Order: sequence, then structure tokens, then C-alpha cells
Amino acid sequence: MMRLPRVQSLTPESEGWGYYLCSHKELRPIRSGELLLVTLQDATGQVNAKVLDEIGRFNAEFEAGEFVRVEGHGTIFQGQLQLVLTHIRRVNPDQDRLQGFREEDCVPSAPRSIDEMWAELTAHLESVRDPHLRVLLNRITTDHRDALREWPAAQQIHHAYRGGLLEHILKMAETGRFLARAYNANEDLVLAGTLLHDIGKLQELHYEPGATTYTRDGNLVGHIGLGLILVRETANGISGFPDPLRAELEHLILSHHGSYDHGSPVVPKTIEAFIVATVDELDTRIHQVRRAIAEDPTDDEFTGWHKRLGRVIHKGTSPRRPD
Amino acid sequence: MMRLPRVQSLTPESEGWGYYLCSHKELRPIRSGELLLVTLQDATGQVNAKVLDEIGRFNAEFEAGEFVRVEGHGTIFQGQLQLVLTHIRRVNPDQDRLQGFREEDCVPSAPRSIDEMWAELTAHLESVRDPHLRVLLNRITTDHRDALREWPAAQQIHHAYRGGLLEHILKMAETGRFLARAYNANEDLVLAGTLLHDIGKLQELHYEPGATTYTRDGNLVGHIGLGLILVRETANGISGFPDPLRAELEHLILSHHGSYDHGSPVVPKTIEAFIVATVDELDTRIHQVRRAIAEDPTDDEFTGWHKRLGRVIHKGTSPRRPD
Amino acid sequence: MMRLPRVQSLTPESEGWGYYLCSHKELRPIRSGELLLVTLQDATGQVNAKVLDEIGRFNAEFEAGEFVRVEGHGTIFQGQLQLVLTHIRRVNPDQDRLQGFREEDCVPSAPRSIDEMWAELTAHLESVRDPHLRVLLNRITTDHRDALREWPAAQQIHHAYRGGLLEHILKMAETGRFLARAYNANEDLVLAGTLLHDIGKLQELHYEPGATTYTRDGNLVGHIGLGLILVRETANGISGFPDPLRAELEHLILSHHGSYDHGSPVVPKTIEAFIVATVDELDTRIHQVRRAIAEDPTDDEFTGWHKRLGRVIHKGTSPRRPD
Amino acid sequence: MMRLPRVQSLTPESEGWGYYLCSHKELRPIRSGELLLVTLQDATGQVNAKVLDEIGRFNAEFEAGEFVRVEGHGTIFQGQLQLVLTHIRRVNPDQDRLQGFREEDCVPSAPRSIDEMWAELTAHLESVRDPHLRVLLNRITTDHRDALREWPAAQQIHHAYRGGLLEHILKMAETGRFLARAYNANEDLVLAGTLLHDIGKLQELHYEPGATTYTRDGNLVGHIGLGLILVRETANGISGFPDPLRAELEHLILSHHGSYDHGSPVVPKTIEAFIVATVDELDTRIHQVRRAIAEDPTDDEFTGWHKRLGRVIHKGTSPRRPD
Amino acid sequence: MMRLPRVQSLTPESEGWGYYLCSHKELRPIRSGELLLVTLQDATGQVNAKVLDEIGRFNAEFEAGEFVRVEGHGTIFQGQLQLVLTHIRRVNPDQDRLQGFREEDCVPSAPRSIDEMWAELTAHLESVRDPHLRVLLNRITTDHRDALREWPAAQQIHHAYRGGLLEHILKMAETGRFLARAYNANEDLVLAGTLLHDIGKLQELHYEPGATTYTRDGNLVGHIGLGLILVRETANGISGFPDPLRAELEHLILSHHGSYDHGSPVVPKTIEAFIVATVDELDTRIHQVRRAIAEDPTDDEFTGWHKRLGRVIHKGTSPRRPD
Amino acid sequence: MMRLPRVQSLTPESEGWGYYLCSHKELRPIRSGELLLVTLQDATGQVNAKVLDEIGRFNAEFEAGEFVRVEGHGTIFQGQLQLVLTHIRRVNPDQDRLQGFREEDCVPSAPRSIDEMWAELTAHLESVRDPHLRVLLNRITTDHRDALREWPAAQQIHHAYRGGLLEHILKMAETGRFLARAYNANEDLVLAGTLLHDIGKLQELHYEPGATTYTRDGNLVGHIGLGLILVRETANGISGFPDPLRAELEHLILSHHGSYDHGSPVVPKTIEAFIVATVDELDTRIHQVRRAIAEDPTDDEFTGWHKRLGRVIHKGTSPRRPD
Repeated sequence: MMRLPRVQSLTPESEGWGYYLCSHKELRPIRSGELLLVTLQDATGQVNAKVLDEIGRFNAEFEAGEFVRVEGHGTIFQGQLQLVLTHIRRVNPDQDRLQGFREEDCVPSAPRSIDEMWAELTAHLESVRDPHLRVLLNRITTDHRDALREWPAAQQIHHAYRGGLLEHILKMAETGRFLARAYNANEDLVLAGTLLHDIGKLQELHYEPGATTYTRDGNLVGHIGLGLILVRETANGISGFPDPLRAELEHLILSHHGSYDHGSPVVPKTIEAFIVATVDELDTRIHQVRRAIAEDPTDDEFTGWHKRLGRVIHKGTSPRRPD
Repeated sequence: MMRLPRVQSLTPESEGWGYYLCSHKELRPIRSGELLLVTLQDATGQVNAKVLDEIGRFNAEFEAGEFVRVEGHGTIFQGQLQLVLTHIRRVNPDQDRLQGFREEDCVPSAPRSIDEMWAELTAHLESVRDPHLRVLLNRITTDHRDALREWPAAQQIHHAYRGGLLEHILKMAETGRFLARAYNANEDLVLAGTLLHDIGKLQELHYEPGATTYTRDGNLVGHIGLGLILVRETANGISGFPDPLRAELEHLILSHHGSYDHGSPVVPKTIEAFIVATVDELDTRIHQVRRAIAEDPTDDEFTGWHKRLGRVIHKGTSPRRPD
Repeated sequence: MMRLPRVQSLTPESEGWGYYLCSHKELRPIRSGELLLVTLQDATGQVNAKVLDEIGRFNAEFEAGEFVRVEGHGTIFQGQLQLVLTHIRRVNPDQDRLQGFREEDCVPSAPRSIDEMWAELTAHLESVRDPHLRVLLNRITTDHRDALREWPAAQQIHHAYRGGLLEHILKMAETGRFLARAYNANEDLVLAGTLLHDIGKLQELHYEPGATTYTRDGNLVGHIGLGLILVRETANGISGFPDPLRAELEHLILSHHGSYDHGSPVVPKTIEAFIVATVDELDTRIHQVRRAIAEDPTDDEFTGWHKRLGRVIHKGTSPRRPD
Repeated sequence: MMRLPRVQSLTPESEGWGYYLCSHKELRPIRSGELLLVTLQDATGQVNAKVLDEIGRFNAEFEAGEFVRVEGHGTIFQGQLQLVLTHIRRVNPDQDRLQGFREEDCVPSAPRSIDEMWAELTAHLESVRDPHLRVLLNRITTDHRDALREWPAAQQIHHAYRGGLLEHILKMAETGRFLARAYNANEDLVLAGTLLHDIGKLQELHYEPGATTYTRDGNLVGHIGLGLILVRETANGISGFPDPLRAELEHLILSHHGSYDHGSPVVPKTIEAFIVATVDELDTRIHQVRRAIAEDPTDDEFTGWHKRLGRVIHKGTSPRRPD
Repeated sequence: MMRLPRVQSLTPESEGWGYYLCSHKELRPIRSGELLLVTLQDATGQVNAKVLDEIGRFNAEFEAGEFVRVEGHGTIFQGQLQLVLTHIRRVNPDQDRLQGFREEDCVPSAPRSIDEMWAELTAHLESVRDPHLRVLLNRITTDHRDALREWPAAQQIHHAYRGGLLEHILKMAETGRFLARAYNANEDLVLAGTLLHDIGKLQELHYEPGATTYTRDGNLVGHIGLGLILVRETANGISGFPDPLRAELEHLILSHHGSYDHGSPVVPKTIEAFIVATVDELDTRIHQVRRAIAEDPTDDEFTGWHKRLGRVIHKGTSPRRPD
Repeated sequence: MMRLPRVQSLTPESEGWGYYLCSHKELRPIRSGELLLVTLQDATGQVNAKVLDEIGRFNAEFEAGEFVRVEGHGTIFQGQLQLVLTHIRRVNPDQDRLQGFREEDCVPSAPRSIDEMWAELTAHLESVRDPHLRVLLNRITTDHRDALREWPAAQQIHHAYRGGLLEHILKMAETGRFLARAYNANEDLVLAGTLLHDIGKLQELHYEPGATTYTRDGNLVGHIGLGLILVRETANGISGFPDPLRAELEHLILSHHGSYDHGSPVVPKTIEAFIVATVDELDTRIHQVRRAIAEDPTDDEFTGWHKRLGRVIHKGTSPRRPD
């Protein structure tokens, strides 16, 4: 039996075995028994699968949240690709590693490698000219290195996978710095704002592969408040950190949603704040658009109706976007 | 010459001299010269006044923001009471104190005495049963005693006078505690929420009699963020302060505007948060309504159109409100 | 066979027989037949149940809206408690009363007894000092006694059970009177406003246990208009009822939704109107919050997403709410 | 000296005497005295005027709200026509009537004569086929004949002159009946809805020539509530008035603002209600547009910015509108 | 076997064969196989149907979008009428025409015949007095005759069937012309605006019986922009078409949604534009209301909750609407 | 007498003569005569000025919209710099040119020279790789060269001066191209969208130095519709212009306001459209912010309240923005 391809390469003809993260499991009752429905993830995406026979036996072999080894084949069901599984069990790490199981292959992840992204982050940090901001950024990224490398940018809406937060802030840093130069704004501040605007998400969300949840502080305080506290406490610990600089930096975090309606307790009042809010909104929106295009199962020129965006999306007819 | 009565008791027949705070001064140009228009305040309110003669001389005798001694008489101008001044000069504290000048008489103030309000605050603090909240509340009210006794609750909209913040939070504490008991909520938390919800205003606003201004942190961080930081830092300094309690308390500050639209970065998610947001809104609204009634110059049953409230206000025809 | 416990005390281990109100019945088609799904209610809540065998026979034994006698046992299905029924039939009142059937035990009801609530209402009425309001309140509560004791406050959103309207207005009367005293408002008027603000619901809704529906007048006129007419007609029948008092009372009914957006044709223009609208909103909101907590099936610190409230709700970690 | 022409025909060259209603009077202070500014109205519109000399003497000769006899001449001031008055005094009815003074000539009025409009109303009433609606409409129009002939439709926004309400409802009756036939709706109901939708304005507003004010009931109950009560009381007095018909008629009054946002406590739920709300909105809007065109002082193709409508208005370049 | 009646006349007792358009087909999986669910349409409406046996065989006999011949009988399922099919196959035009198959009988269509509606359109065109508008209207209706006779007015919301656009604009022309006369507006312009306001829909939508889809230009340019271009290009081709008239006509198309919120890039600035926007809104709304009433399966006085309209609809109790 | 400095360099000590554009003139009446108030502009900004004596004589010497020669000196009035004029007359071009009068020095203009900006535009055009877009852009910029070099971007809100439109679209082209590369979008399309998004403003506005007005087409069709037509007509004239490319380009114009609320009849549905709408919004906002800072007359850290932006603006305390 062959090994199944990556999720994004599965076809109805695929058949074989593979390792995945089971992010969801559900017994669907039917008259004389039940179906076992599961969602399987790997680094490239996720796919629905079902077990039709020996439900009781297989149900006992794994839980949602565990890595699993499956056997099965592809099929088309109501217009979408699915897997029909003939076997499923939880991974036995020691054994399965010998067969090629690697956790990181089974977790939905940013398209770029985390080490590559971290190197880009480091380069940004080294370019900061303001000494206080440089110290502050180094301290925060060092103290929170592990989470910052792993965290998704959100539970669902955008960049909702391993390394998603890093991917998001790096793109914002790239575009934000350009706009800062174009508008003769304080580039160090804009860089700091893009890197830290969502830093409170490290405490707002709890991330484990396959399960991003809101923490108590996430629900009650929220990432804007949590980010504010982290920046304030860090700045307090840096001798001579200028008070006006601290206030402008905090302002970037507090105002990054751009308006009261979107949950910012203060609205942008500096050019840097307008830039940070703008590149955050744009990167979020474009990520949603790209995902809508990627996930649309048809060959049509437009996607189906995207409820959150409130529109259909054009997939592109002019030659462009070689990726 | 007699002494002029309190501002709220002035009539067109009033004539004499008095001490006031001059909160505004303006040279109004007219064809062959200028009028000198000023706004005079005392503890009970404010009145417009004008100098018609010897403008140049009197204009040099004082500035806006200073206490002044005036002589003049009342008049009615376009349906409102005014003073016509024949003399005006800045107060000479040493001399004028001998004539009865007292700063506190000349500053718009809450109707209740600050000492009386402070005693009520103290009583609230003593009734707190939760030991951590009691320590935290005592620490904050002690550390910020001076400002908390003086500060207005806002620059303009409500309780915009000396002691206004204290007046506002005491009324909220009274009503909030009752509602906490009525709904079997955590009374200590509601009390703490009412007392601290606007604590960031001590840093958001800079108050001097006659001039309340926004600080840099007020504009860039805002009182919700500033209050959050103060509570977090204080709780961090109290050994064993329970983390869930800290999160719920911070939530009360962050959510007290009640909705995103009104600038809360998180919406109320606890019963205590609904109560605190409700009594804040109600006390603000009733203060605006009372002031609209007090300031309406007519004897009509309704006030004129109140732009901010978007309505006229009924002044009351049924027997009630003996005050 | 034992008797099943109250709905709120059911467990997967429960087994036995019991009396309930069947509020919903549905044949769910499956390939070779059908399931019979029902919703069962008693005074403490409601639970889903299903009949797996002899569908045709049992389907003929009762209709939705009838009291039923069932036999069965608890189970967990998709994370929620259900009953699996082996027998179900409509109640035969004469016979079943001998076995302990009582209608009132089978109807979702306010947690407090109606007699106790009525006594509290009576006490409120006796405390009214204004003679005209006292007559008017007595007349309306006497004329509509039967409905006022039974009616829910709404079809679904809050207090949607027997005695719910009474429960709602009593809590509003308690908090409204306190706020009236705190703000030196007309306590009699506030009391009258809280008791009568939803009085039009007696005509807007038609209530029978298990089925609250909108009447023609409910849909076309609405409870604000219906309440206005009832108050006007009653006041017209009371000799010497002062016209200003009538207008202020009617204003409380018309403005109690607080803003045009929420369907009030006039916005609050008296302090009493602000108080009545505030306590209505607060009691409604807290009831929704409490119910969201009560109905959440998990042990998590927060409920799941509450669609109507647009948020999750914190269930409370600090010691509080002994009930 | 010649008699001055009608207000709408005044030019900078006009000179003479005339009778007007003085709707506004103000002493505008200037350095060495005051100007006397007045607003003068006649049936065709209003014009600003000023007295430059002998202010004290003329100020004592009349009050706002009185009919006056003036002498003066036209001028252009800041791009608008004004009158400069050399004499002004209150009318002495007995004497001045001999000179041609007639009250009705001096009051801003609908362009059509009231008798002519009343005849049209009568014709509408006679065409009603439903016997109960015919009785109800006759009773209300008879009982309120005097006010209905005089009342404006609003204090300011549209049809704000004598007979304006009648003009408004007749145009709505004309267009509403046509739409009822076009959509096969109940023409009698639509007619009744158009005639009665604003009937509560007779109690909401107090009208005297030159001064339309809100009554207590107008502010506290509002014309929707007042209209509802009038219709209910009248229907109650008509033997056998069908209850469904009453409910549908009341619905037309309650829903005629079209949405909650605009202050309707119930939204349209019948085709007749959609028609009534539509023709009300359209007639109001077109009246505002026509007035904006009529009052624009320039020869430009578009009016200036109209704040309430939030746009400029095109005055028309294609041949149309012969009036 | 008898022929089945029209869709709107089907009952649970109906049994026989018939021709329909299959607009939707779905395999609904169940444990040991599948159901075949289809939607069948004819000129009078649509009905759900299911095939229970020989799924594989019948599934191969037709596709969604094809005309089909079915055999089966009515039934009631979850309160709604359905067909249970024992045979279904695609139509063989040559053969089936001999049995009475006619495409136009199987396509949801406007209630009036298209020829009759076209004659009414022609009569409107002949009555236009302005020579340039007459030429322009004739040219556009001639050039686009085929589509204009067939197109629906929308994909789903209103008049979503063959001839629906024609039905919609004729009703608007009728009511718009009346209002133009009533308000002394330019009747020719209003007529042109009603006929052309949605003319861009001929390019925005692609219509085939049973499937209305958005075109690329529909999604990217939209019917307002497409209509503007069509009118501009046509006017450019008419010698001497007056520029002001062209601008006013284009304005009617651009502003016909009535406000920015609803997607009009300019708001109505002429009386004609207010009229066109008003009759468009009214006709759309009434069509939705009528359909809600027609599709409600109960005998209740009100429909169930209509999600898009956000309300229930009264079906009418007073005698009216003979249709 | 010396020559007065540029407007942005005027001080209260300035004294001398100079050439300006008079954009506004008003006779302000006072008791015994009038003041003559004027607004004077040069390339760097505008300043208010007044004539105190010989009003009648000077009033006859010039009109608003003319270039003038003035003599006078600076002063501070109500906290703002003004000029007091002792002479003012219209420019006599032949004579005054000998004294150094140049029209372009007297007209508010973009800070960069138009020739420099045009060269930048040309460079953008030369870099376009898509042959059809290159032809289309060249054709439009050639056909409309004169207006495109002169036009302001708006009547008031932003870039409201000579060359403002060019300045605006060049900044958008710079930032838009960078974002297109960053997001791997079609750079040619984004460039074309930024250059053409407001091209309809050439017809929407009529520009003369000192007076930007809306045209008939501007009011009735608007710049979005006018730009659409220009692009469509130009594309139609280019042989083989691909239809999908045309649709995507038109989409950029139609959607550039970003949402229905802001007047776009279609919302962005391509990544290029999100980028164009984003850089338009950002450049507009930053221009407003910069101008608010430049025009604030105080040395405070924040500007005063900016009504249109709904906030105060921080002027910057951290070292940045060397310009």
C-alpha cells in the first residue's frame, strides 16, 4: 500500500495510508448505528473523512486532538473530496517515527518555514535605529520566543495555523516600513507597532496543534489590553525609556483596530497609527481573499458567496500571481 | 457697595462686588474698538460678563485662569442674565483674603462637600469583605487621594467640576451595590468596579480650577487603558492576589462603556460588568438631564432642545423631587 | 419502576416514569421508517426525548401541546442529556391525578411561587402614596389578575415561562424604586412604570402552557400601543386623574425601550423614564445571562458563544452567588 | 406711498407700506446701541427686516407674534433680499381693517385655499365604500374640523404653515388610492390610513399663526400614540366596528414611519401599510425638495447644500413643471 | 394514468405523470444507500420531490437543468406538500412534444403573458412626447428585445422568473407615471427612468430557465454601471440628444437605489429620481410580501417569520384583493 | 516699502506689499458702515485680511476671484494671524508683471512642481508591461494632459489645490505598486487603478484658481460613473483590448471607495481592488492629518479638535519626520 499524498494534493483516486492530526471527531447517529466522522489535518490543509464499519472498535482507538495513522481512499461526496477510512488509530510516536511520522508534517502551518521567518524577524530587529525601541523589541521577542514562533494569528478568521502570527506580523512589517518611508513617518515606531500590535494574542489565545482556544484573560481582558500591559511592563524595565515614545508605542497597540466600532478604545491619532491600522486591515483582508480562492472547489471565475466578506471573490483572469 | 450673591442667586437687580474665577477672556472687536467679554465662575456655576469701557486698561489687569475681583451689576441680554462690569482686576491673595476671598468659593464644585464625600468613600472601603480587593482599593485610594478628591469626572459632558469624579463614583457605588444584592452578584466586585472604572481619568485629564485638559497619555492611551495598567500594577504588588479575581476586576474597567461602539475593547461578560456599565450610563445620563433642567432659562414645562441628548427634557409637573 | 426526577435533576442514570408537557413533536424520516422526537417540559425546564420503536403506535397516542405520561431512561447524545422513551401516551386527567399528576408541575414556571409573587405585588400597591396612581394600579391589576399571574414576559427571549412577566416586573419594581429614591425621583411614578410598562403583553401574547403565540393585535398594534390604550382608558375612568400625571405615566410606557432603534416611538424625557428603561434593559440582560450559564452543558469557565448576546459569558470564578 | 407686494414678489426696488405677521423680534446689540431685527410673514412666505433708527421707540410698539403695519423699502444684504423699515407698529384691527388688513393674508399658508381642499377631503369621504370606515372618518373629520383645516403638518420640516396638514394628507390620499388600485389593495383602508396617519398631530402640536409649538402630550406621548388613542376611542363608539378592521387601521398609524429607526413601534406588515408609509415619505421628501428649490436665492442649476437632505438639489433643465 | 395538475394546484391526492424543469438534484446519503432529492418547476411555481428506489438507475437518467418527465404522487412531509416519484427521466423533445410537452409550461414565469406585457411596453413608448427620449427608448428596447422579454428581475429576491424584469418595470412605469403627473414632474423622464433603471441587469445576469447566474461584468461592474454605459452609448448615437437630458436620465439610473447604503453612487437630486427610487422600492417590497403570503403553507392570519423582511406578514382579514 | 513674504512665512511684524489671489470677499455690516473682509491666497496657503477704511472705494477696486495687489501689515486677531490692508486693487497684468507678479505664485499649489510630478507620471507609464494597459494609460493621460496637470483632487477635503490630483495619484501609484509586489498581485493593474481611480474628477469638478465647483455631470453622474465611461470608451477604441482586463480595470474604479456606505456601487472583489481602495483611503487620511498639523496655530503637542476626523491629532514628540 502506498503512502497518501499531502492533503492539498489528494484526489478521488488517492489510496493508501498516512499520518494526520485528528482535529475533530463525531459520532453521527443513524437508525441502526452510527457513522464516525473525523477531520484530518496536515501542514497543507484539512480534509473530512468517515469510518463506515466497525465504528465501536475504531472509536476507541483515538481521540480528537491526537495524531492518527489511517488507511483509506478518496471519494467525492456532495461535490467535495473526502476520505473513506478502513483503519484509524492513534499514533505510537516511538514506532511510527520509524515509519516517517513527524509531528510538524501533521499540523496546519504557515507556508514559509518558521526558521526562515524568524531570521527575517531578526533582521528587522537589527535595523532598528532607536536604541530604546531596539532594546524593548529584543526583550519581548526573546522572552516570548517560543510562543511567537508557534502562535496562530487568530482562532479562525485569518492566519489560523502554526506560525500564522509570525507570518502576519512580518508581512505587516514589510509593508508598514515601506509606507513609513513613503510618508516620512517614524519607521522604527511603525516597525515596533507592526511587530507588537497583536503581541497580546500570546496571552489571549492558548494554542495547541489542532485546537486554539481563548484563555480567561483573552475573554475578559482581550489582546489589546494584554498587549498594552506587556509593553508598559517591559518599557518600565528599560532604564531611560522616553515617556513620549512609550505613549506613542502604546497608542499603536490600542488604536490598531482603527475605530471604536472595531474595538479600539482610542482611534488613530498619529500618522504611524494610521499606517499600522491600515496594513493590519489589508493583510487580514488579503489573507481571507486568498484562502477563499484556495478553498473554492469549482473551476469558476468567481468563488461562491463568502459570508464573512459579504461578497464573491474574483479568482483572476488576467495573467498574474505566478505563485 | 454690597457683595454680589452666589452665581446661582444672581438677578438683574444684583449690584456690588465679588470674587470669581475668570475661566475665559476674549476681546470682541467692534468698529471703533473692542468689548471685553469674560466668563466668571464660582462654586455654584458660571455667568457671562462684559466690560464696556476702558477696555485697554482692564484687559491688562488679569488673564483667563486667574481669580478676579469685579464690580458691576446684573442685566438681561438676549434672554439670559449677564453682569456688566465697571471694574475687574486679578486677586491679590494676601490682601483679598482679608476681604473674604477664598479660592474654594470661586471654583465650580460638586454640591456636596469633599470631606463628606470622602467619608462616604471610606465607609464603602471598610465594608469590603474580600481581603484582596480591600487592600487594593485602600492602596489606590490612598496613593491617589489628592487627585481623587479634586478631579472632575469629565472635561465637559457630566460632573465637569471639582469633586465631580468622587460624586459620580459614590452614586454609582450606592446604586451598584444595591443592584449587586438584588441580583445576588458579587457585591465587593461591583463596588470595586464602580470605584475604579474611571480611575484612569486621574491620568487622562489634567485638572486645574477652570481648566480641565487632556494629557498626552489621555489622548494616546485613554482612561480605559490607563485604569487597566494602574489596577494591574497594584494587584501585582499585593501578595497572593488571586488571578481570576484580578481578571474579573480588570474586565469591569475594560467593559464599562458597555459596547464596542462606545469604546470598550471588550463587552460585558459577567453580571457584575453589566451592572457597572448600567449604573455608569444611568448616572451620566441623569446628571446631564438634571443640568439641562437647571440651566434652562425659561419657566416652560420642557427645556429647549438638548443637542447632545437629542431631545427636550420634561422638567416635572407631578409633585416630586423636593430638592 | 421509580418516578423520574425533575428535569433539572435528570442524569444519564435516571430511569422510570413521569408526567410532562409535550411542547413539540416531530417525525424525523430515516431510510426505512421514522424516529419520533419530542420535547418534554416540567416546571424546572425542558429535555429532548426520542421514541425508537413502535413509532406508529405511540405517534397516535398524543399530540404536541398535551400532557403526557412517559417511561424511559436517560442517555447522553452529542454531549447533551436526552431521554429514550419506551412508552408515551397522553395524560388521562381523572386517572393520572390519582397517581400524582398535577398540571402545574409540568409547566415551565418562574422559580418563585405565583402566590408569593402576588403578595409582593400587593405590598408594592399598598405603598403607593399618590391616590390616583394607587387607584389606577389597583384597578388594572384587579381587572387583569388572572392573566397577570400566568403570563410569560416574552415568547422566547427572557422570562419565557408561566409567571415570567410577574417575576420580571417585580424585580424591576424593586430596583426601580431604589433608583428613584437614590435619584430623588418620583417613586410612585417609577413603580407604576415598572408594573405597567409591559402590561400590553397581556394582549400582545396569547399564553397557554407550552405555547406562547402573538395575537393579531400583538402583531399589528404591539404591546407598547396596547399598554398605552389600557392606561388611557383606565385613567379616563378615574375621576379627577390629573392630566399631567397621566401624560407622564403614558410616557413611561411609550419610552421604555429607551430609543427609536429599539422601537420606542418617543425617547425618555423624564428622569423616571430613564430609570424605567434602564431597569427593564438590565433585568432582561441579566436573565439572558443567567439562562446562558444555566443551560451551558460544559464545566468550562465560560459558556459557548451566545448568538443573541453576541459574546461568551463568564460563569464566575470568584466566590459569589450562593444560589 | 404704495402698498408693498406679496413677500414672494418683493424686490430691492419695492417701497411702500404693508401688513405682516411679525414671527420673530430681536435686539441685536452693537457698540453704541442696538439694531432691531424682525422676521415678517405673509401668506406667501417670510422676509427679514431691520429697523436702524429710533430703536427704543419702535421696539415698544409691537411684540413678536403680533400683526404689524410697516413702512420701508427693499435692499440686498449678503446676497438676500431684506426690508429696511422706517416705521413699524402693531395692527389696530378695527382701524386697519378699513385699510385692507386681513389676518389670513398675513399668515403663511398652503398654496391652495382651505375651502377648496376641504371640498376635496369631503369627496374622498363620500367615496368610501366600507360603512364602518366611512362613519369613523366622518366622525373624526367632523369632530376635529376646525383644527384639521388650520394645522400645519409639522413645526418646521415640511408643510409647516396654515393648512399644511390638510395639503399633505390630500396629496397622500390621491397617490395612496392610485397605488392601492394598482396593487389591488384595500383602497378604503389606504384612504383612511392616509387621512388619519398624522391625526395625532392635532394634539401633538399647538398651532397659532406664526408659532407652532409642541404640547405636553406631543412631547411625552407623540402623534403616533395620540393618533392611536383617537382612532381606538372613535372605533369603540361605533356599533359593530369590526375588530380586524380596527386592528388593521391602527396598524397603519403605528407603522407609518416605516421602520423602528424612524420611530414606528411596529413595522409595516400589510400591503396597505407599505403603501401609506411610502406615500408619506415621498410627499415629505418632495415638499422639502420643492422648498429647497424655491428658497435658493441664486440662478444656478443646483441649489446650495441642503443640510437636512444631505445633498444639493437640481432645479431642472429639461422642460417640465409648468407651475 | 392521469396527468398531474400545475404545481400550484398539486394536492396530497394528486397522482399521475407530468413534465417539469428539474432545477436542483442532490444525492442525500443515508446509511445503506442514498435518496435522490430533486426540485421540480413549472410556470406556476416549484415543488420538492424524492425518489426512494432504484436511485442509481434514475440518477443516470437526467441532470439538474434539464426538462424531465416524472411519474409519482403527492404526500405531506413535515407540513409541506411533496411528490414521491416512481419514475423520472429527461425529456426527449421530439417524442415528448407529441405528448404535449412545451418548454414554456415548465419554466417559472410571470403571471401575465409576455406578449401582453410587451404590448403594454409598446404603448408606453408611443406615448413619450420628448423626441430624443422616444428614440432612445425605442432603440434600446429594440436592440435588447429578446432578453428584455425573458429576463428575471433578480436572481432570487423578487420577480425571479421568466419575464420578471418586464413585469417589474411595467408596474413601475404605471405607478411612476401617475406620481409624475401628481407631482407635476417630467413624465417622460420618469417613464424612461422606470424602463431603464435595471437595464444593466441584461448584462449583469445570465438567464436560462432554471438557472440565473451573475456574469463577470455583473460581479465586477454591476447593473448600475452597465446600465449607465448602455444609456451613454445609445445617447451618443442619437444626433442632437441634449446633454442636460442625458445627464438627468443617467442620474435616474445611478440613484435608483435611493441611498449610498443601498449601493447608489449618487443620491437622488431631482424629483424624478425620488419618484423612480420610490416606485422601485415599493414594487420590490410588495412583490416580496405577496410571495411570502402565497408560499406560507398554513391557514393562519399571519405568515411565519420572513427572514429577509424581518417580520411576519398579515395575510388580510378585511375584504379586499379579489385576485 | 518691502515686499511681503509668502503666506506661510507671514508674521505679525510683516509689513509691505504683495500680490495674491482674492478667493473670498465680504462686506460685514456694522452700525455706522461696513468692514471689508477678504481671503488672500498664494502658492503656500491662505490668510484672512480686512480693510478698515475707505470701504466703498476699495470695494469697487476688485472682485473675488481676481488677483490683487495689497499693502498692509500683520496682526494677531483672536489668536490667528491676519493682515490689515491699507490698499487693495485688482492686478493690472501688463503693468504688474513688470513688478514681479506671476499668476502661479498666487495660486495654492501642490508642494512639488508640476513638471517634476509629470515626469514621475511618465516614468510610471513607461514601466507598464501589459501592452493594452500601456496604450490605454498613454491615451488617457495624453488626451487629458492639461487638466490632469492642474486639477485638485477634491473641492475641499484633501489635496484641494492646483496639481493636487496629480500629487495624490502619484503617491498612490508609489505605495500601490509596492503593495502589489508585496502581495504578488498584478502590478500593472494596480498602477492603472491608482492613476485612473479619480479620473472622473476631471469632469466632476470645474477648476479655476481659487474656485473649484461641481459640474452638472459631477452632481448628477459623479466621478465614479464618469471615470467608468471614460475607461470604457477608451478601451473600446483600442483594438484587441481584452474583455476580462477591461472588466477588472473598471472594477477598480467602481470599487475604489471600498464599501457601499462610502458610495461604491460594487465592493472590492479582487486583490488589486483591495489594494487600490486601501492606498486611496490612506493617502487621503494622511493628507488630512498633515494639514491639520500644519494649520494648527498653537505650539501644543496636539492639534485642536478636528471635526471631520472626529479626533485631535498628535503632532509628534519622538524625533521623526525631518521635513
